[in-house]
Amino acid sequence: MVINMAAGASEAELQHVIDRVRECGFQPHVTRGTERAIVAAVGSGGSRSSLEALAAAPGVETVVPIAHPFKLVSRIARSERTRVCVGDVCIGGDEVVVIAGPCSVESREQLMSTARAVKAAGATMLRGGAYKPRTSPYDFQGLGLEALQLLSEVREETGLPVVTEVMSTDDIELIAAHADMLQVGARNMQNFALLRQLAKTDKPILLKRGPSATVKEWLLAAEYLLAGGNCNVVLCERGIKTFETEMRNTLDLAAVALARELSHLPVIADPSHGTGRRDLIAPASRAAIAIGADGLIIEVHPCPERAMSDGAQSLNLNEFAAMMRSLTAPVRPIAMGMAVGA
Amino acid sequence: MVINMAAGASEAELQHVIDRVRECGFQPHVTRGTERAIVAAVGSGGSRSSLEALAAAPGVETVVPIAHPFKLVSRIARSERTRVCVGDVCIGGDEVVVIAGPCSVESREQLMSTARAVKAAGATMLRGGAYKPRTSPYDFQGLGLEALQLLSEVREETGLPVVTEVMSTDDIELIAAHADMLQVGARNMQNFALLRQLAKTDKPILLKRGPSATVKEWLLAAEYLLAGGNCNVVLCERGIKTFETEMRNTLDLAAVALARELSHLPVIADPSHGTGRRDLIAPASRAAIAIGADGLIIEVHPCPERAMSDGAQSLNLNEFAAMMRSLTAPVRPIAMGMAVGA
Amino acid sequence: MVINMAAGASEAELQHVIDRVRECGFQPHVTRGTERAIVAAVGSGGSRSSLEALAAAPGVETVVPIAHPFKLVSRIARSERTRVCVGDVCIGGDEVVVIAGPCSVESREQLMSTARAVKAAGATMLRGGAYKPRTSPYDFQGLGLEALQLLSEVREETGLPVVTEVMSTDDIELIAAHADMLQVGARNMQNFALLRQLAKTDKPILLKRGPSATVKEWLLAAEYLLAGGNCNVVLCERGIKTFETEMRNTLDLAAVALARELSHLPVIADPSHGTGRRDLIAPASRAAIAIGADGLIIEVHPCPERAMSDGAQSLNLNEFAAMMRSLTAPVRPIAMGMAVGA
Amino acid sequence: MVINMAAGASEAELQHVIDRVRECGFQPHVTRGTERAIVAAVGSGGSRSSLEALAAAPGVETVVPIAHPFKLVSRIARSERTRVCVGDVCIGGDEVVVIAGPCSVESREQLMSTARAVKAAGATMLRGGAYKPRTSPYDFQGLGLEALQLLSEVREETGLPVVTEVMSTDDIELIAAHADMLQVGARNMQNFALLRQLAKTDKPILLKRGPSATVKEWLLAAEYLLAGGNCNVVLCERGIKTFETEMRNTLDLAAVALARELSHLPVIADPSHGTGRRDLIAPASRAAIAIGADGLIIEVHPCPERAMSDGAQSLNLNEFAAMMRSLTAPVRPIAMGMAVGA
Repeated sequence: MVINMAAGASEAELQHVIDRVRECGFQPHVTRGTERAIVAAVGSGGSRSSLEALAAAPGVETVVPIAHPFKLVSRIARSERTRVCVGDVCIGGDEVVVIAGPCSVESREQLMSTARAVKAAGATMLRGGAYKPRTSPYDFQGLGLEALQLLSEVREETGLPVVTEVMSTDDIELIAAHADMLQVGARNMQNFALLRQLAKTDKPILLKRGPSATVKEWLLAAEYLLAGGNCNVVLCERGIKTFETEMRNTLDLAAVALARELSHLPVIADPSHGTGRRDLIAPASRAAIAIGADGLIIEVHPCPERAMSDGAQSLNLNEFAAMMRSLTAPVRPIAMGMAVGA
Repeated sequence: MVINMAAGASEAELQHVIDRVRECGFQPHVTRGTERAIVAAVGSGGSRSSLEALAAAPGVETVVPIAHPFKLVSRIARSERTRVCVGDVCIGGDEVVVIAGPCSVESREQLMSTARAVKAAGATMLRGGAYKPRTSPYDFQGLGLEALQLLSEVREETGLPVVTEVMSTDDIELIAAHADMLQVGARNMQNFALLRQLAKTDKPILLKRGPSATVKEWLLAAEYLLAGGNCNVVLCERGIKTFETEMRNTLDLAAVALARELSHLPVIADPSHGTGRRDLIAPASRAAIAIGADGLIIEVHPCPERAMSDGAQSLNLNEFAAMMRSLTAPVRPIAMGMAVGA
Repeated sequence: MVINMAAGASEAELQHVIDRVRECGFQPHVTRGTERAIVAAVGSGGSRSSLEALAAAPGVETVVPIAHPFKLVSRIARSERTRVCVGDVCIGGDEVVVIAGPCSVESREQLMSTARAVKAAGATMLRGGAYKPRTSPYDFQGLGLEALQLLSEVREETGLPVVTEVMSTDDIELIAAHADMLQVGARNMQNFALLRQLAKTDKPILLKRGPSATVKEWLLAAEYLLAGGNCNVVLCERGIKTFETEMRNTLDLAAVALARELSHLPVIADPSHGTGRRDLIAPASRAAIAIGADGLIIEVHPCPERAMSDGAQSLNLNEFAAMMRSLTAPVRPIAMGMAVGA
Repeated sequence: MVINMAAGASEAELQHVIDRVRECGFQPHVTRGTERAIVAAVGSGGSRSSLEALAAAPGVETVVPIAHPFKLVSRIARSERTRVCVGDVCIGGDEVVVIAGPCSVESREQLMSTARAVKAAGATMLRGGAYKPRTSPYDFQGLGLEALQLLSEVREETGLPVVTEVMSTDDIELIAAHADMLQVGARNMQNFALLRQLAKTDKPILLKRGPSATVKEWLLAAEYLLAGGNCNVVLCERGIKTFETEMRNTLDLAAVALARELSHLPVIADPSHGTGRRDLIAPASRAAIAIGADGLIIEVHPCPERAMSDGAQSLNLNEFAAMMRSLTAPVRPIAMGMAVGA
């Protein structure tokens, strides 16, 4: 932290800040400029939030953080990349993992036909919502336990490990008994009570980025999980809220690369929610892989126009298969100047 | 909903949409334009999300909602304004209510001195965090039960009703035993599991707007509470996330007026979180009242620079008293042209 | 500026940064932490952008600005508030100034009837667009010279000084011959060629905040005008772009207070563009005055539903008069706890 | 457009809207719902903005646009993709074009060494700023005419066509005499006076997306150029402003795919401004190509830490060469479930 004194701050005010920095567990280093002084708080043992409160001390203009606030998720804490295993599937390894399935589990037939089709097309994990966070209380809220049982059944038959969302601490035990990976939805990214409980399970966690979370806040949410004892965390970029209205969200693909640079955790992308448009899912998926994503999570439904949630952004079974084929298609060649000019 | 067919959609595709609209419980009304047809889905008995899924039907370009999706919170459901009583305090009545207190309860002395001072200055309710949602797991997380007991004690001594945040369904019962009003924090606005449980309590709820929630999403979160049986809901605008970095959030004061227009629920403003700057709290409070807010919630601490959370945006006791006096100060006069020109 | 070295930066990299800071015209002050060093660049004579480029030097993690980059617009450069006179009207003085008129000048009758009505209701300046920035090339682009002549005429008859927008350096001379104040529209806030030319005129400038401009960028745009020789600048907050869709923009009223705190320039608010909704203009206007705005600019049209631009957000003549009366109406009283509890 | 009547609108209000729709040049089609009526305005000959003003008519709740407002830029107007030729370089054809060069032209040596290096690495066009839009008036504003002459010289020697930014209508002629392609910067995307003049030149235009422009507004800015007679327009996504602070902008790569879907114009990406971080430029470039971009524009400087602008986001000559090689590197393979499970 750097504490930036106001232009007219007195010596007594400066001294007070110096004393407080020391009390907070840091060493103060003062730099006197022509107009103002700044105090750098050095060390890592103290309390960052106590330093931040110094913004309220007399003579202080601003308190500016310098270093990143996260620890266990950072590349400094662990230089090699983390691999998260979900059943036989390894996320964060040499291969890109594709997770696919319906937004909501609606019936045995719907889930089974989707699971078989996405497996045949190359997906190695199944997604499917049992408890659904819906903006309106009047929208379909998920089949709950029935959906969990269907997910278990379909896993047995297809061998695909299953990821499903946990919305409440009350449901963790039940869901953990049926699913291989627990998803924290975007709206719950900063549901700290939930994160603290999930940190105590031994299940891998899929942590979606909140629609208005900075990359830093996202990594700090993951830090809750690691600090609580669960290191099997996969980050998922699913779009952020912006002024753009043609797409449901703005898929922040550069954040995938940035999160992988700042953290050792695997990062996957969700182009279904990230764009909200079926026509953009295949190109966005190719871009996600190109930027370094460790995987994709894609909404697929046998008949999207009859889906009980997210139909507009779900691929049908054929569209998904076509998308999978397109992932490995070569990109357009670069017009290399030297080929002509050399 | 209006289903907007693509320019080249076939008659069969149009007919399919007409049939599906009927199946979803609406009456289809077709308008054929020069380039395209649109299908209006009329009626209120059907499923909106089923209609939305028609975006995935062949020949459909977009599905555009026309009417608002909320019901019980709307002025149509209830034309008179709702008043929410918390102890002796009535929010939504003829007077503006000021809730004040520390971000976090830190000690008996801190809470008691703050409570006495804010009461003396005119506040009629006390705020104070027992369970704190913190971006970093390494920041102070609240005193929990100890804080709840202190809040109870201080209420006994001062007579001020108490509002405090509930972060988890696990804590509702305990907190409800100590507090007069339960706050849903901004990050939990779409924690639907929490909303559903809170709908079953008989305590009034303070529902903060999420940092990236539209007014519509905010009202739909309140709809969860009303639909679940709890009509004692107060909305709280506390700033949204934007690109601006000089302030912690962008306080969306017009949303206070808009929410009061769309809904019968009381709406208060939180200029402490909304601006994140002590110097802006008094002017933002005056503006909130001028735009129609039913109340204010303000962070106050005996010594902000030593606060364990939100020190930078907390007023000290004198600053709060000064702010209260400023709320009723006359505004600058208008330069009336006719006074000169008439 | 503070140059934050990476955790593993070498001594040679640190020395290189120290040398470069000196070459850029600043004195380097080094603070060595447990993990990393930081270099504070002290002094005001050097080049900020050269320092910023050090982010590309080996071993540097980030370059963090500490002080504000603007000079002439700041309260440090001038502690008393600036008053900008437009004809007999003084903006930034003891009274709040109301500027009103149609979005676009459409005809002599439209302009004259509006001008008379807004004057009768208390407005002291007239607005009216001659050259209109329109998102679509197929929308009405303004009457141009004809509109300027009408504005001149109506000013003669009503005595109201006139403000109108300049979209191009080519038009400055012509518009300056007809108008009393020149408006830089939100989309042109960073049209630096235009700002540089306007800095050379002797006309007062109304500088709207860009829809995605931070307060800092807005003040730096004003700095172009002051640095170029024109100190008669009035800032205008007119809403920023956010994810909210119920309103055209998010009116950032706290930015009015912040801009007045950071700068000595007058600041007015535009609730017409800021909300885009007629029903919110009166409450937003009251809030703007309460937060300290030096004035308001309001769109008024004799028949909004026939307006050639911005009809949806224009008040009709009666609505404007009612709004003016409401500006001075008393706000709701505060429920003062002590009145009961004392 | 669909005009959505309020729930309690009278028959007379409805009739008035019907009449006005007809007067505006559209055919009204009325749908009466259980609670409200909607009026669809059908046809393409009328004035959209006149319809929009009906939001101000009594009994109208909202006016909702259905169809896109752009014409000439749309795929409906032209189904085959447009190719824009700049000298020998074809943008929008079978190959991806890479434009590279310094943010600002600083000297003959700087420009020539950069041009030679980027050509050797495969770039086929040169970028370089002569007139620079800078947030602060105290930052380097470009060498102007001298820079134009250097660009001409370097083009002669290297054969690379040149693109440079035009900030003012006053400079068009001069710049057009030296450059092969004229850039409209992000801040000038809605500088309509500039667009109208550029529409009259015969030079190809590179139109950057504004930092707060929706895809629709961006395409409408291009519509100004096409409607004015210049069809040689290349769109450039360069990042939008969001709440994220770790990156300079949020590169909206899905918008590249969307713009190519909505329009026949070529679309390139600018990962330098889009991310503002050298470490993200190579991965973001690969993602841009994967999502379908017709080209890239990259900032390159012989010594970024001494660049007079944008040093932090400029690649040095070696980094650029490495990035070019990485563009054609194979992506990670997909973990294909069937390979294991089949």
